[in-house]
Amino acid sequence: MKHQTLCKKLANQIEKNTKHLIGTKKASKTIKIGADGKPTKKIDLIAEKTAINYLSNKNIQLITEETGLHRFGKPQHTIILDPIDGTYNATNNIPLYSTSIAIADKKLKQIKYGYIKNLNNGDTYKSDGKTSKHNNQKITVSNTQNLKNASISYYGYNKKQRQQKERLNEKVHRIRTLGCISLEMCYVASGKLDAFIDTRGAGSTDIAAASIIIKGAGGKFQPIPQKFPTKHVKKQIKTIATNKTIHKEIQKTINQ
Amino acid sequence: MKHQTLCKKLANQIEKNTKHLIGTKKASKTIKIGADGKPTKKIDLIAEKTAINYLSNKNIQLITEETGLHRFGKPQHTIILDPIDGTYNATNNIPLYSTSIAIADKKLKQIKYGYIKNLNNGDTYKSDGKTSKHNNQKITVSNTQNLKNASISYYGYNKKQRQQKERLNEKVHRIRTLGCISLEMCYVASGKLDAFIDTRGAGSTDIAAASIIIKGAGGKFQPIPQKFPTKHVKKQIKTIATNKTIHKEIQKTINQ
Repeated sequence: MKHQTLCKKLANQIEKNTKHLIGTKKASKTIKIGADGKPTKKIDLIAEKTAINYLSNKNIQLITEETGLHRFGKPQHTIILDPIDGTYNATNNIPLYSTSIAIADKKLKQIKYGYIKNLNNGDTYKSDGKTSKHNNQKITVSNTQNLKNASISYYGYNKKQRQQKERLNEKVHRIRTLGCISLEMCYVASGKLDAFIDTRGAGSTDIAAASIIIKGAGGKFQPIPQKFPTKHVKKQIKTIATNKTIHKEIQKTINQ
Repeated sequence: MKHQTLCKKLANQIEKNTKHLIGTKKASKTIKIGADGKPTKKIDLIAEKTAINYLSNKNIQLITEETGLHRFGKPQHTIILDPIDGTYNATNNIPLYSTSIAIADKKLKQIKYGYIKNLNNGDTYKSDGKTSKHNNQKITVSNTQNLKNASISYYGYNKKQRQQKERLNEKVHRIRTLGCISLEMCYVASGKLDAFIDTRGAGSTDIAAASIIIKGAGGKFQPIPQKFPTKHVKKQIKTIATNKTIHKEIQKTINQ
């Protein structure tokens, strides 16, 4: 099956099986602690079970946020999956939550394909690393050249990270925190935002698909300093993703 | 005409006349400086012209973000209108942008009715001050009792405001900045967020409808320290809106 077809079918299955939980209290009930060390909510678990069920008769290795590594048949590819990114938004029906699917080689050397779907409004972003598309239209990163005109998305919680944000805050035009990092990275790929910065660190499952979508749109994706992609979903990978032009200035401002 | 019918028809007209501009570059072209002292984008101007055209044969006073005060016929009511709230999101097709409509008495003593529509997905929030509804279902604020469990939305740009945010950051669970304050206040009214704080200040047109939607949902809306509502759209009104329970603790943390 073609990468694109597989991703599309998988995302559609997850969308179908979780739709009744969007905006409901039961969706956010914590079921257990996931493979990534964070709480697994009911909606995450149902989404993940859907994926496992759908992929279990294929020759595929699967890395997923809640239950980690699975091998089905004789794997030729590895799927790195975040079944529901933006769980808080999904359980509250804030219209930014997605399924994020990356396809890598068996040994996890390289990501070959990325597919992200906003499960609220059906928007899709995809890339083979050469061309990136939003709803089948080619996208490119913004041409914003100076931080003072930049609209960026930022995540950072502890004191040091907030100081980094403070330094950026003094330089950029606009800072957002939308609560769905895969979509926020797609917004960088399509020029809706100029940069995405996550100094907390996110799992491979959160950023794998977006990394190739940003690259294919002419942007720069920089995972720091971990091996990426990795099958260890607990590893937190700090990320800077930009339109390339403002990358150095952002790096410099953060590391001051 | 009933308040609800008027609001619904007005929002639908604006939606219809701006749909072709969503996510386009020309939508964000600056046309002039608005009555609120901020740049008026093409999409804002078209939305506002639509509203003026629709209301001009009615007995109504209109206060609107871009062109200020209008009187049509013999006004019995005042409409306080932000035709497009979240212009940046709208011009970039980030799915959080709205029309915000409040109906007050002629002398602007009291807001009688509020109506906010997410123009991307059609979600509506409305209130007569007694009952608030989301898509015709009654809503209430969250029952979150402690800041450590709170998800809040925050706006503040200058150094002092960012220090206030920093103090909140140390206490709350989650901070978001979604770029559409009328919807973010509706999220407080419907328990999706626990508080909304804007220490920059927003115009009456941005917060009037949301203020009554929050009150009707059992929350607390506090404009600081300006007269509210006001016909002077340049006046920046600082706002704290919460589920009521955590109001004092938020106030205290900000004013420390």
